[in-house]
Amino acid sequence: MSDGKKYIYDFSEGDASMRILLGGKGANLAQMWKIGLPVPPGFIITTEVCHKYWEDKATLRKIWTDIESAIARVEKLTDKEFGGKKNPLLVSVRSGAPVSMPGMMDTILNLGLNDETVAALAEASNDERFAYDSYRRFIQMFSDVVLEVEHDKFEEALKKAKESAGVSEDHQLSAEALKKLVAEYKNIVGATGKEFPTDPWVQLELAIDAVFRSWNTPRAITYRKINNIPGDYGTAVNVVSMVYGNLGNNCGTGVCFTRSPSTGENKLFGEYLINAQGEDVVAGIRTPVPISSLAQEMPEVYEEFCRIAKLLEDHYKDSQDIEFTVERGKLYILQTRNGKRTANAAVNIAVDMVDEGLISPQTAVTRVTPEQVEQLLHPQVDPKVKYESLAKGLPASPGAAVGKVVFDADEASECGEKGEKIILVRPETTPDDIHGLFAAQGVLTSHGGMTSHAAVVARGLGKPCVSGAETIKINLKAETFTVGGITVKKGDYLTLNGNTGDVVLGEMPLVAPEFTEKFRRLLEMADKESKLEVWANGDTPDDAKRARAFGAKGIGLCRTEHMFMAPERLPVMQEMVIASTTEDRIVQLNKLQQMQEEDFLGIFEAMDGLPVTVRLLDPPLHEFLPKVPELEKILKDLDPDCDMAKKIRKEISRAIELHEFNPMLGFRGCRLGIIYPEIYEMQIKAIFNAACGLKKRGLNPVPDIMIPLVSTKEEMKRLRAMVEKIAEETFVRENCRVEYLVGTMVELPRACMVADQLAEYAQFFSFGTNDLTQTTFGFSRDDAEGKFLANYVELGILPTNPFAVLDRDGVGELMKIAVKGGKATSPQIQLGICGEHGGEPSSVAFCHHIGLTYVSCSPFRVPVARLSAAHAALGLLQ
Amino acid sequence: MSDGKKYIYDFSEGDASMRILLGGKGANLAQMWKIGLPVPPGFIITTEVCHKYWEDKATLRKIWTDIESAIARVEKLTDKEFGGKKNPLLVSVRSGAPVSMPGMMDTILNLGLNDETVAALAEASNDERFAYDSYRRFIQMFSDVVLEVEHDKFEEALKKAKESAGVSEDHQLSAEALKKLVAEYKNIVGATGKEFPTDPWVQLELAIDAVFRSWNTPRAITYRKINNIPGDYGTAVNVVSMVYGNLGNNCGTGVCFTRSPSTGENKLFGEYLINAQGEDVVAGIRTPVPISSLAQEMPEVYEEFCRIAKLLEDHYKDSQDIEFTVERGKLYILQTRNGKRTANAAVNIAVDMVDEGLISPQTAVTRVTPEQVEQLLHPQVDPKVKYESLAKGLPASPGAAVGKVVFDADEASECGEKGEKIILVRPETTPDDIHGLFAAQGVLTSHGGMTSHAAVVARGLGKPCVSGAETIKINLKAETFTVGGITVKKGDYLTLNGNTGDVVLGEMPLVAPEFTEKFRRLLEMADKESKLEVWANGDTPDDAKRARAFGAKGIGLCRTEHMFMAPERLPVMQEMVIASTTEDRIVQLNKLQQMQEEDFLGIFEAMDGLPVTVRLLDPPLHEFLPKVPELEKILKDLDPDCDMAKKIRKEISRAIELHEFNPMLGFRGCRLGIIYPEIYEMQIKAIFNAACGLKKRGLNPVPDIMIPLVSTKEEMKRLRAMVEKIAEETFVRENCRVEYLVGTMVELPRACMVADQLAEYAQFFSFGTNDLTQTTFGFSRDDAEGKFLANYVELGILPTNPFAVLDRDGVGELMKIAVKGGKATSPQIQLGICGEHGGEPSSVAFCHHIGLTYVSCSPFRVPVARLSAAHAALGLLQ
Repeated sequence: MSDGKKYIYDFSEGDASMRILLGGKGANLAQMWKIGLPVPPGFIITTEVCHKYWEDKATLRKIWTDIESAIARVEKLTDKEFGGKKNPLLVSVRSGAPVSMPGMMDTILNLGLNDETVAALAEASNDERFAYDSYRRFIQMFSDVVLEVEHDKFEEALKKAKESAGVSEDHQLSAEALKKLVAEYKNIVGATGKEFPTDPWVQLELAIDAVFRSWNTPRAITYRKINNIPGDYGTAVNVVSMVYGNLGNNCGTGVCFTRSPSTGENKLFGEYLINAQGEDVVAGIRTPVPISSLAQEMPEVYEEFCRIAKLLEDHYKDSQDIEFTVERGKLYILQTRNGKRTANAAVNIAVDMVDEGLISPQTAVTRVTPEQVEQLLHPQVDPKVKYESLAKGLPASPGAAVGKVVFDADEASECGEKGEKIILVRPETTPDDIHGLFAAQGVLTSHGGMTSHAAVVARGLGKPCVSGAETIKINLKAETFTVGGITVKKGDYLTLNGNTGDVVLGEMPLVAPEFTEKFRRLLEMADKESKLEVWANGDTPDDAKRARAFGAKGIGLCRTEHMFMAPERLPVMQEMVIASTTEDRIVQLNKLQQMQEEDFLGIFEAMDGLPVTVRLLDPPLHEFLPKVPELEKILKDLDPDCDMAKKIRKEISRAIELHEFNPMLGFRGCRLGIIYPEIYEMQIKAIFNAACGLKKRGLNPVPDIMIPLVSTKEEMKRLRAMVEKIAEETFVRENCRVEYLVGTMVELPRACMVADQLAEYAQFFSFGTNDLTQTTFGFSRDDAEGKFLANYVELGILPTNPFAVLDRDGVGELMKIAVKGGKATSPQIQLGICGEHGGEPSSVAFCHHIGLTYVSCSPFRVPVARLSAAHAALGLLQ
Repeated sequence: MSDGKKYIYDFSEGDASMRILLGGKGANLAQMWKIGLPVPPGFIITTEVCHKYWEDKATLRKIWTDIESAIARVEKLTDKEFGGKKNPLLVSVRSGAPVSMPGMMDTILNLGLNDETVAALAEASNDERFAYDSYRRFIQMFSDVVLEVEHDKFEEALKKAKESAGVSEDHQLSAEALKKLVAEYKNIVGATGKEFPTDPWVQLELAIDAVFRSWNTPRAITYRKINNIPGDYGTAVNVVSMVYGNLGNNCGTGVCFTRSPSTGENKLFGEYLINAQGEDVVAGIRTPVPISSLAQEMPEVYEEFCRIAKLLEDHYKDSQDIEFTVERGKLYILQTRNGKRTANAAVNIAVDMVDEGLISPQTAVTRVTPEQVEQLLHPQVDPKVKYESLAKGLPASPGAAVGKVVFDADEASECGEKGEKIILVRPETTPDDIHGLFAAQGVLTSHGGMTSHAAVVARGLGKPCVSGAETIKINLKAETFTVGGITVKKGDYLTLNGNTGDVVLGEMPLVAPEFTEKFRRLLEMADKESKLEVWANGDTPDDAKRARAFGAKGIGLCRTEHMFMAPERLPVMQEMVIASTTEDRIVQLNKLQQMQEEDFLGIFEAMDGLPVTVRLLDPPLHEFLPKVPELEKILKDLDPDCDMAKKIRKEISRAIELHEFNPMLGFRGCRLGIIYPEIYEMQIKAIFNAACGLKKRGLNPVPDIMIPLVSTKEEMKRLRAMVEKIAEETFVRENCRVEYLVGTMVELPRACMVADQLAEYAQFFSFGTNDLTQTTFGFSRDDAEGKFLANYVELGILPTNPFAVLDRDGVGELMKIAVKGGKATSPQIQLGICGEHGGEPSSVAFCHHIGLTYVSCSPFRVPVARLSAAHAALGLLQ
C-alpha cells in the first residue's frame, strides 16, 4: 500500500510483545524464531490488514506485491518454489487473533497443491500415495473452509472409494485410488458451480480472504461477546511453510514433555515415530518409541532437541509440551505450549522450579489450582484405568472409595471395627447413621443433594460420597439394590468416585493421596501471598489436631451441640431439656458442665497458642428429644406406672410443647441463651474453667466465645455481659487470666443490616453463610435440595448451588453491608466466615475481596482454602 | 441587674411567641392576658435568669429589686398586700420550661402565708378552717419541695390528727384541729434543724431558687435526655396571684368543655360549684350543677364565661377544656387547654370546625389520631361502665364482643346460623376452625400471640379477639374453663374487650361503631393530604366490596389459595396435588380453572376500574393434603382394595414425598410455578378469561399479576414471559385487550438485594413484610410468638413485636435498598406493601417516608391507614 506502513512481518521481524499487531500465534512463532528455534519459515499478515479489509474488501489486492515478496523470502529460506514443478513450496494458512479463539476458524494445510505440484511432491517424497493423500485432504479442507462446499459430500465419496477398494481405513487406499478420489472431489466442487482454483496464488488469496471473513461470522461475534473480547481486535493471518516427517527414514515426528506430566520428574518424557506424520502418532496404528531412543537413532537431532527443550523451559519458565518434526534430518519445532499435568506433578514441578531458581515462590503458587489441591487430598480412582459406571449420582464429597456394600449403619459400624472396608448404601442418611458413616470408606445415597446430610457429614469426615443416585432402587429388607437390570447384594464390591459421581461395580485400583514435603512447602509459599488466614471448623480434639496438621491457624467454629449427642451424654441432656424448673435444669447442667470441660481441655490443648472459637448451644432443644411416635411406641409396652413410663410421658409432653413448624427459624441460637440463661452460663463456665486449667499448666489457650443467631444489639449486649461476668469470676477464683474475645455468628439478614449496632458489643463477626444463605433466599437446605434446587441450577435460574458457591449478589451484598457496618463502629473488628463456603475457592476469593480476616472450613479443605486465598490475593481468583 | 436587660415580664408584656424566653406556661398566661382574658395577675422570671443562676448563684439577689417591683405591680392590680395583715396577697410559684416537662417539679401554692397573714386570710374569707387548711398545705408543700423535709412525716402527723379528732377525711378536721396540726408541722420542720421562713419575701426567694435548682436534678437531666430536650433551655418561673372560689356565695369554681367531649356537639358542657374550691369539684363530696345553671345563678358571670369560651375556641381553633374560678363575683380563667374527647367527638368537632370556617381541612385531619379511627370501627364496651375482668390476654383484634361461650367450631357455626351470639373459646385455633370463627362474635384463646392463627383471622374478619389468656385452663371434654377458682360453662355469657385483652364474665353493654357521614368526609380530607394510596387485601367479592366501601383504591393482595380451600374445591385440588403425571395434573387444573374464573369475575366486577393484584399460588402443595396420621386413621377402617383406600395410599405417599422440615422456606411460591408451570398457567388463563369477559360487558377490569417469593431475576423473567404469552393468546382469541401489570411480592432478603435486577422484569414491587420479617430476623411466626417473642418484648430486647410494627433497622433498611434498586432500574416502578404492617400507623408512616406508592391492608383497617398516610404526609407520624 502507498501509506508506507508495514503490513507483512516475517517471523524474523516480530516477537512475543507484538501480540496485538501479529496475533497470539504469530507473535509466538516470531518469538520462537527470535530465540533461535528451528521454526519453519513463514510470515504474518497483521491485524491492521484485517481492519482495512473490513473497510474495503480490495485491501488484499493493494498489499499483494508485499505478500508476493514475503512468499519469495520463504522460497529462498526453504529453497522451494511456490507452485514450483520440482520442489514445490506448500504452506499452511491460519488465523491468529490477539486472544485465542479456539475453533473459530479451521486451518488450511498443504496449500499450493495442484495437478502439477502434486506430481512434483510425489517425486520429491518418493511417495505417490502420500502426495495424493495430501492433495485430496487439501481439496476437501479448502472447499469446506473457503468455497463453503458441504463437507458431507466429500466424506461420502471417500466412503465409496474405500468400499470399492475393499478396505476399511483411509491409509489403506492406494495412490491410484487416491488419484481417482481427487478427480471425484473435483467433480463435487464443479457440480456446485464453483471452481476449484488450481493457481497456488489464487488459492492463497482466497484462503487469506476467508480468514479475514471469518472474523465477523455470527459464531465468532457471539464467542467474543461471551468472552468479553473486543470486536476491533481483528485477526492476523499466518502463512507457514509445510514440513513433513514422512519423507523417508531420515524423517520423523513426535511429541515430548520437558518433565513428567504424571510425577513432575525433571526428565524428558515423550515419544516419536520415524518416517511418519503427526496424525500417525495420534492414531496409534504404529507404536511410537520413547524419546530416549532418538539418542541412538538420530543422535545429533536428539542433542539438538534436548538443547531446545531446555531453552524453551528457560524461556517460558514452565514445563513444555513440544511438537516436533524431523524433515530429512532437520529438526523443526512446530508448536510448544505449557504441558498439562496431574495435580501431583503440578506441585512437584512448581516447587522444583523454585529450587532451580527458574521461578519465584509467588509464580510457583500460581502454577497449582485449588481444584488440583482437592485431588491431592483424597484417594483417586487410578486415572489410567477405564471403567464402566453402573449409575451416576452427584459428586457430593471428593475422592474414591472401594468396599463391600452394607445397607445398615449398625452393621457398617461393626464391620468397620473389624477392619473391613465397606460402602454404606442408604436411601438417605440421618444423624442416627453417623457411626455407620464414620466406619465406612464411602457412602452412596439414592436421594439427597450436594448438601444432604450424607454429603455434609461425608465432606466433614473427608470421606467420598455419591448422593442422589436416583436410578438406584434400594430394597432395605432384601439388602439389595437394583439398577439397569443389575442387582447388587450385600457384600458385593463397589467403587465410588466422589469426584465424578460414578458408581462402579467391583474393586477399582485407587491411587493414594500425597501430602508430600513439596506440597507442604507450596502451601507455605501460598500463605506468604495470602491476605486471609485459613482456620478450620472442628468439634473434637481429633478435628483440632488434623486442622493444625493441615495448617489451620485457628478453630473458626467449634460446635458444642455435637458434644451432647454422645450416647452417655444424651440422657443427661434429655433430662435437662425436660426439666420443668430452672433448679432441675441446673442439676443436669452441672453434670453436663463436667463433660464440656473435658471437651474443651482437649481442643484447647491441641490448638495451644491458637484461637478456638466456641459457638454456644445453637439447635432447638427438641432436637435432643426422640420423636414423639418413637416415644409412643416404647410407652405402649410399659407398665404405665413405672418410672420409665413417667419419664417418657414427660418427654412426649415436652416434645409437643417444643414442637416447631419451622425449626430453622425457631427457638434456637442465642434465643435459648436469653430465655434459659443457665444453659449458656454452664457452657461459659466450662470454657473458662478449662482455659484456666491449661493456663496454669503453662499452656496458652485462646478461647473466643461465639454467640449464634444474633439479630439484635440487645442480645449481643446481654450475652457479652454474661460472658464477661463469668470470665471475671473464674479468673478471680482461679487466680489466672486468659485472653479471649466475644463475638457473634452473622447468619441472619438482620444481623448484617444492624452490624454497626452489633459491633458495639461484638469483638468479631463470623459469617455463618449456610444459615445466611437459607434466610436470604428463603431456601430451607433440608427441603430445597431435594425438591427444586437441582432443577433451578439445571434450568439456569441459578448459576450454581448457592450452598456450595457463595451467592455474591444476595448473600455477598449482605456480607458487604455487615463488613462496612462492623468496621464503621469498630475498625479493628475481626471478620471471618465459618460456613461451608469457607473451603470453596470462588467463595474464598470473595472473602478476600471484601476484606475478611480469615476463612474457616472443614479440616480436609484447609489446603484448598490456603491456595485459594493466595490465588485471590494474586488476582487469579476473582 | 446592671446590664439593662429585662429579666421580669408581667403577663401584660409577653405573648405565646415568647416560649423560649418565658417558658411554655408563662407565654401562654401572657397570651391569655393579651387577648383580654381575666387571668389572675402575675409575672414571669425569664429562662435567661436560670442560665445566669447556674453561672452565679447570687443572680437572684441581683434582680431582687425587679422582683419586688413586679410584686408591687401585682399588689396594685389585686388590691392586696404581699405579707399584708388585712388582705394578704398569696401567690403560686411554678416552673415553666420552653418544653413541657410534666412531673419534673411540684407547684407551690398559697405562698405568702405565715401566722399573721393566715389570720388576715381567715378574716377576709370569714372561714378560719379554710385559712388554716391552706396554711397547713403550704407548710407541707414548701417543706417538701424547698426545704427537702421528708414528706412521710407530715402525712403521719395528719393521720394522727384525724385519729385523735375521730374523723376519717381531711376536710372533716376543724379549724382548731388544723391550728394544732400547723403547730405540729412547724415542729417537724424544726426537728430537722431547718427553719421554716415566716417572711413571705424569704419564702418567695427560696421558692424561686428551688425552681431553678430543679432544672438540673438527675431526674430532670434524665428526662431531657430521653425526650431530646436541649439542656440549655433552662426554666422560667411563674409567680401568680392566688384566687379563691370559696370566699362566699358570690364565689364558685368549675370546669367546662366548649363542646361535648363525648359527642362533639357544639354546646358548652361543664359543671361548677358555688362557694367551693377546685378540689371540691374533683372530690365529688358535693354534686356540681350543670354550667347552664350559672345563667340563673350568676347571669353576668355566665354571659362573660360564654364570651370567653368562644374567644378561646376562636383563638386556639380547637375545643377547650377551661378551668375557672369566680372570686367575689369576678370570673378568673385559671387554665385552658385542648379538651380531651372520644373518637367520635374528635371526628365531629374536626369536621364541624371546618364547616364553621374555623380550621382548614388539613388541620381537621390532624385532630383525629389513627388510634381513634380504630376505635370507631368496632363496637366498644360502653366506656361509662366499670367492670372487673376475669382474666387478661393479649389485645389481639380490637373491638368488644358479647356472647355465649362455645368450645367447638362446628357448634359455633351451627349457633351462628341460628342467629345466636356466641364467643368461641379454644386453646388455639387452626384453619379447620375457620367456620366457627366466622360465625362467632369474638374469639378467646388460651395460647398464641398477637399474630397467632386466631389473631390474624380475627383481624382479617374484623372480629374482636383476645389471645394467649394463659391463666385460663380449658377442659374441652367437660366444655368448661376455669380461672381464679371460677368455672365458666358452655352457654355462660362472656364479654371480650379486644382493645385491652380483658375477659369479663357476663354481658357488658356495648357501644356501636359509627361510620358516619362526617367520618367519611374527614377521611376524604385525609386522602387529599396523603402521598400514599390505601389499598386493601381481599380474597373474595365480599372483601372487595367492603374494601371499596372503606375507601380502598385497589386490591393490593388477592390470595388465590384460599379459593381452593372451599369444601367443594378441595378434593379437586387434592387430586391435582397427588397427580403423578403432568397430564393428570392438567385434567384437574382444567376443572379448577372454571372455579377460579368465577372467583375473579366477582372480584374484578366489585373493583371495576380499580386494580386487583392477584397473587399466584403461594403455599406448599402439602398444605392442601390432610395430615398423614389422619389419613392412616381413615385407611385402617377401609377395605384395602377399594378405590378410596387406593387414593388415600397415594395421598399418604405424596404427603411423605412433599413433607418439609421448614415449609416456610420450602417448595412454595414461584418455585411451584417454575417446576409445575401448568399450575400458574391455569391461574393466568382464569385471570385473563375473567377480565376479557367483563371487558366485553363494558366493565373495566384492571388485573395485576403478582409473582410470590421471587429471589432471582430468572424467576421473574420466565414468569413474566409466561404471563405475557397467555395474556396475548387470550386477547387474540377473545378479540379484546385489558391493561395489566406483572410484578412481584418482595418478601425475601435476596429480593431486596437484587431489586435492581428484578425491576428489569417486574413492573411493580409489593413488599410482603410478614414473610420478609420472618426471613430477616429468622423468626418463624408460628413458632416465635408462642416461644420467645413475648419475652423478648418484655425484656426490652425488641421494642415491639416486629410482626405488628415494622422493624425499621432491619426489615426497613432492606426495603430501602429494594426501593433504591427498583427505582434505579425503573424510575416509574409501582411500589406497595401488602403485609399486615400496611394497616399499622407507624409502619404506614415508614412506607410514606421511603416513597411507596400505596399500602394495602385488611379492609377493616383501610380507614386507619388512610388517616395514618395523611398524618405521615403532614409530618405528624415519623
